[in-house]
Formats: sequence, structure tokens, C-alpha cells
Amino acid sequence: MKHTRVGIIGGGPAGLLLGHLLSARGIENVVLESRTREYVERRQRAGILEQSTVDVLRACGAGERMDRQGLVHEGIELRFDRQAHRIDFPSLTGGRTVMVYAQTEVVKDLIALREGPLLFEAEALSADPATGVVRYRHEGAEHTMTCDVVVACDGFHGIGRASMPAVTTFRRDYPFAWLGILADVPPSCEELIYAHHERGFALHSMRSPHVSRLYLQVDPGDDLADWSDERIWDELETRFAVDGDWKLERGPITDRSITPMRSFVAEPMRHDRLFLAGDAAHIVPPTGAKGLNLAVADVTLLAQALTRWHGVGDESLLDAYSETALRRVWRAEHFSYLMTTMLHRDPHQDPFDDRLQLSQLRYIVGSTAGMTSLAENYVGLPLD
Amino acid sequence: MKHTRVGIIGGGPAGLLLGHLLSARGIENVVLESRTREYVERRQRAGILEQSTVDVLRACGAGERMDRQGLVHEGIELRFDRQAHRIDFPSLTGGRTVMVYAQTEVVKDLIALREGPLLFEAEALSADPATGVVRYRHEGAEHTMTCDVVVACDGFHGIGRASMPAVTTFRRDYPFAWLGILADVPPSCEELIYAHHERGFALHSMRSPHVSRLYLQVDPGDDLADWSDERIWDELETRFAVDGDWKLERGPITDRSITPMRSFVAEPMRHDRLFLAGDAAHIVPPTGAKGLNLAVADVTLLAQALTRWHGVGDESLLDAYSETALRRVWRAEHFSYLMTTMLHRDPHQDPFDDRLQLSQLRYIVGSTAGMTSLAENYVGLPLD
Repeated sequence: MKHTRVGIIGGGPAGLLLGHLLSARGIENVVLESRTREYVERRQRAGILEQSTVDVLRACGAGERMDRQGLVHEGIELRFDRQAHRIDFPSLTGGRTVMVYAQTEVVKDLIALREGPLLFEAEALSADPATGVVRYRHEGAEHTMTCDVVVACDGFHGIGRASMPAVTTFRRDYPFAWLGILADVPPSCEELIYAHHERGFALHSMRSPHVSRLYLQVDPGDDLADWSDERIWDELETRFAVDGDWKLERGPITDRSITPMRSFVAEPMRHDRLFLAGDAAHIVPPTGAKGLNLAVADVTLLAQALTRWHGVGDESLLDAYSETALRRVWRAEHFSYLMTTMLHRDPHQDPFDDRLQLSQLRYIVGSTAGMTSLAENYVGLPLD
Repeated sequence: MKHTRVGIIGGGPAGLLLGHLLSARGIENVVLESRTREYVERRQRAGILEQSTVDVLRACGAGERMDRQGLVHEGIELRFDRQAHRIDFPSLTGGRTVMVYAQTEVVKDLIALREGPLLFEAEALSADPATGVVRYRHEGAEHTMTCDVVVACDGFHGIGRASMPAVTTFRRDYPFAWLGILADVPPSCEELIYAHHERGFALHSMRSPHVSRLYLQVDPGDDLADWSDERIWDELETRFAVDGDWKLERGPITDRSITPMRSFVAEPMRHDRLFLAGDAAHIVPPTGAKGLNLAVADVTLLAQALTRWHGVGDESLLDAYSETALRRVWRAEHFSYLMTTMLHRDPHQDPFDDRLQLSQLRYIVGSTAGMTSLAENYVGLPLD
């Protein structure tokens, strides 16, 4: 039976970053990823890195390509009532910014940096919190690995959370979804546009100076087949419409999908030798751009805790992990909920809710305190 | 048929203040109040005056007793998770504060100052927006008065709003109520305490250095008969409990009532010659202490607009009244909704909501921007 210090289930950004941080500190670890490398390097996910995520990636030597190709953003635009309002991050948050750099690129960078064992198509079957034994299937055979510590970074549907003897879960499903597209057209804006509209939310984001990423609030039951290219662009144009000169450029759509929106938290994030990180423990709706950043915050905490334990046998940070991580998780859950409910049109909302949304939006863009609250949550609170 | 420039229906703080402001500018007006003077001077209502309300009362000569007997408050306390957190107003809002001085005292002061006609037990029966004719019953007979302008300050159940040919109404009823008491005991705190507790909200306020005003969130269907003095004090003690030294002093309860909680807005606030002000047009739940202050803001705007119209025949401010007033109304509606939903326990809330509330409270007391948002809304945005 193989043995390793830290068994990491899941080769997404959380698992790969944790493996990288641990290897850099001489802590032996194995990463198991159920999919192929090609799949992992291609799946489209988030694209906004908080200041502290950028700092972590840079500090561990994984920021080189990000700094060349990523786009530093110093603000976002809120649109409502056909008016545009800019939230300037550096002036409101003491110089903090965000980076537009796709999660899939972070994954590629971390895979390229990987020195220790990273097994693709290695499907974890079970993880025992008491013994640290992980069973997995790889190249047609079943294997067993004993770990001092197991970290499950295996996402919402992974076996990690299912292996916890007892978790309390908190969940909210939203009555709307996002239709997301990638389009081969230069973004029609320099910064992200979050648009509140009576027909529903829209977001204009980007992947690069040549590729736009756009989202429309749609019904969770909507069928992609009912959304022709023309209908998508028309609807985007309607929701982004603003008084004055501004034009939404159209281009070929290269990828499209509909994603439901959900909030989810599992507590605690640790039992005995088993730790949860990232989507395995919590999901946020994408409106706050917090999912990837929370995962990075989790594994950054864990890397510090495991280093202390590995170096001097001190388990205090490991013992504090769940509570420490959950404070940030709930802050992000609240912010994501707030952004989501403020910007989307709930099919059940009444005219009183409509007016509250507009009053809240007007307050935020009209008050330095209101803008600062949004900005400091968006760029992310410091990690310590 | 009598004639007056401005017919004011309702002798509460809004109507009386408007009458006083107009008389000071030489604009003839008549105030009709359906109740007796004794009743009006005794009914218990709000007790927190925003900075701008204090400024208005002082500027029009109605602040003399308020400045002698009112209590200037420079902050409030938020309690949750058995911890106390102070929000300091002056440092967060450029020196603004609030004044604890009961609405009923403001009413007494304004009645004492009144020089023009103020008819008690004069019940308005109708107000015609097109002609400005007001019919009312007084001393057993029906009378008619023609007015250039009619201002209805006659509260939620008054005839003012009912006389508008078309209004759009927005309403939210909350699934809880406030049990409020007056007690002959010095307040156990120097500033108001807003307490979030798993058993429900509690508020410790005061009327004077010798009289406490306390509130408990209860079920709207609760019967006062089921709330003995002992049960009220026990429940207050439980909800205010905090780690460390603090004691709730008990005393004889001299007044008690249960009040439902509601948000309500009617739009527009004017049709032709008829204007709505205060509770006639909008209700807020009391958590934000905004009801009386919105009424003062409405009539301050109206007094400016009527002065301009009376002086130089310019109706532009009268034409803008509804839109201008509603901006402030919706800001207050949103703030009151936020304070209410953040601090109360909704019987339908789920554990996800519980955590969101706590995360929001922790954020507010931990972030300067969060504290400033609360503080600037609580002390009230400037009137201009």
C-alpha cells in the first residue's frame, strides 16, 4: 500500500495549487484527478482573480504567464435605468485590483509546474477520515493509498463531502440561470459591465482582447436550442442599452451553456484526517466572482496549516482550519447573495422588490461608503 | 364658503410643522385635526430625530425645548452572538448625530407655537384634487373650505390618499410585530441597543433619563394578555444577554402595545391641487427610525415649493415634489427593510438565512465602509 503525507483528491485549481504549495515546502503529496488532462485544461469556468489570489499565485511562482496575458482591471461598471456607473477599485480599497485571467489558464500553468505525482483518470472511490485511506481506480485497476491527511478538492459532486460522517448543509437555489457564451469578438467594454434590467440581468466580461464572455439571466428550464445567435445578441443588446453612445459588437459564438445558480455551504470543513476545500465544501452563485477565489483562500490556509504541522508538529492551525475558512466563506456567500438578488429579476418579485433594487443600486453608486462596500468585497478581503 | 391658500388635513407632526413653516413665510393655512388636542398630545409614536429633522425644527424656532430636554446620541449599539459593537455616528458621518425626543413632544411644541387656525375634532370628509374643495365635519355641522392647495398629512388611514384619482401602491407586510413598552426605570444603556437573537429582535430605547422604551419582536397574532410583566422582562433579558458585565434594570411598565410591521409606498404623491405627505403616502417598519423623519422631509420640501409658488408664482418645485420626495422615501424604505430583515427572525427563514444575517452583521461591524453605510442612513442623508 502506497503512503503519502497529503493525498489530494481533485486536480482542479484548488487541488493543483495545494499540491504546488506543499511541494514547494517539501511536503510530499499525490494529486488524483478523475478526468483526462485535455478535459481539465479545456473546461470553461470562472475568470476573475481577486487581489489576494493574484498575490498567492505570484508568490508561489505560478504567476508568470498570468502577469503577461492577464488583464488587470481597476473597476467594474454597474448599469441600470439606462445609465452607466463606474466603481473604481484602487481609490476605494487602498490600491487593490482584480485580474481577468481564466481559471482554465491557471490550471494549465499549475499542471506545467507540477513535479510530484499527478494522476489523471484516477477516480477516487472512497476516503476514510479515520485512517486516511483513499481507494481509487486508475488504468483499469483499484489502488489504495494511505495518507496522513486527505484533502478533498473534488467539487460539489465529489466523494469528499460524502465521506464526512456528519455535515450540516446550507443551500439556496435561485429561480434563474445564466446562459453564458464565448464569442470571437473584441469586448465592447474595457471593464466588466453588470447590468440590471427589467428583463433580467446581463454581464459583459472578457477572456482576452479578442474574446468576449457574455451572460444572460434566463429561466433554469430554458433550452439552448431556443436561443439562436440572433436572439442572444438581441437580448444582450436590449439589456445593456444605455443613453448615449455605446454599441455592443457581435461576433461568432464559439461556446454556449446554461448554468443553474446556487448557494451551498457544508459545515464543518474537516473531520479527523479529511479536509474539504473549494467547491467540495461550498458553492456561490457566480455574480460575485468568488468561487475560484474562495478555493484559493481555502488551500492557502491549508498549506500554511500543513506546513506548520509538518515542520514542528503543531496542529493548531489544522484544528482552526474549518472555523477560519468558514468565516471567509460566509462573507463571500453573503456578498454573492447580495449581488445576485440586487441584480437579477426574480420571477416571483413584486413591484416593491423592483423599487428596493433600484433604491439599493442608486444608493451604492451615490455613496462612497456604498461603493466601498461593493469594491472591498469584490476585490476580496485580505487573506489574514 | 371659506377660502385658504393651503388646507392641511391632519394635525400630527407633518401637518403642524408644515403649517408652522408656511405661517412663518406669511402663507395663510388651516389645519384640520380629527382628534382632540389631548389625544394628539398623548399618543406614543417614534422618538428618534435625524440630524436634518433637528436642523429643521431648530431653524423654524421649534427646537427650544427639544434642545433642553432631548438627548443627543452619537451612536447605537448592535448586539449579536452575545457581543456588543458600537457604531459611532460623528466619526463616520462628518459630525452628524441623532436626537432622542419623542414625537409627542414635537407635537406639543408645534401646537404651542401655532398661530393660524388649527381645528381639533374637525374630521375631513373629502378633498377634491381638481377644485381644492375640502369638506369636513366640525362641532356637529358640515363645512366646506376651498384651498388653492390641499396637503394631506392624515396618515395611512386618512382620506387624502383615498382622494387621489390614481395611485400605484407598493406594500410588504412582515411576519412579525413589535411589543413595545414604556417603563418607569432609568435606561440600562446610554445609547440604543439593537439586538439580533435567535429568539427574535429586541430594541432598548429610552424617552428620558428616567423612562425606558423597550421593544420585543413577537408574533403578529400574539395577545398582550399572554405577556405578563415578568415574561416581558425575562424575554428582554434573554435577548439582550451579552458576555461580560451588563444588567437590564426592571421597573413598572406604564404602557404596552403590539404593532404590526409594514412597508408601504403610494406613487405619485401629488395629483393636481392635492399633495400627500408623511404616513399618508408611505409607511416604514420602525427598525430604521425613519417614519417621522420622512414626514419632516416631505413637508420641508413642500414648504420650500409652496413658498416659491406663493412668492413668485413659480410652480416648478411643486411639479418636482413627488419625484424629489420619492427618492428619499425609497432610500428610507430600503434602509428600513434592510435593518428589519437583518435583525429580525423571520419564522420562515431557513438556516442559510440565519448564517447570512450573522455574516452581514459581522461585516458591518468589521468594516469601516459597512459601519458608514449604516451610520449615514441612520442619521439621515442631507435634505438637499
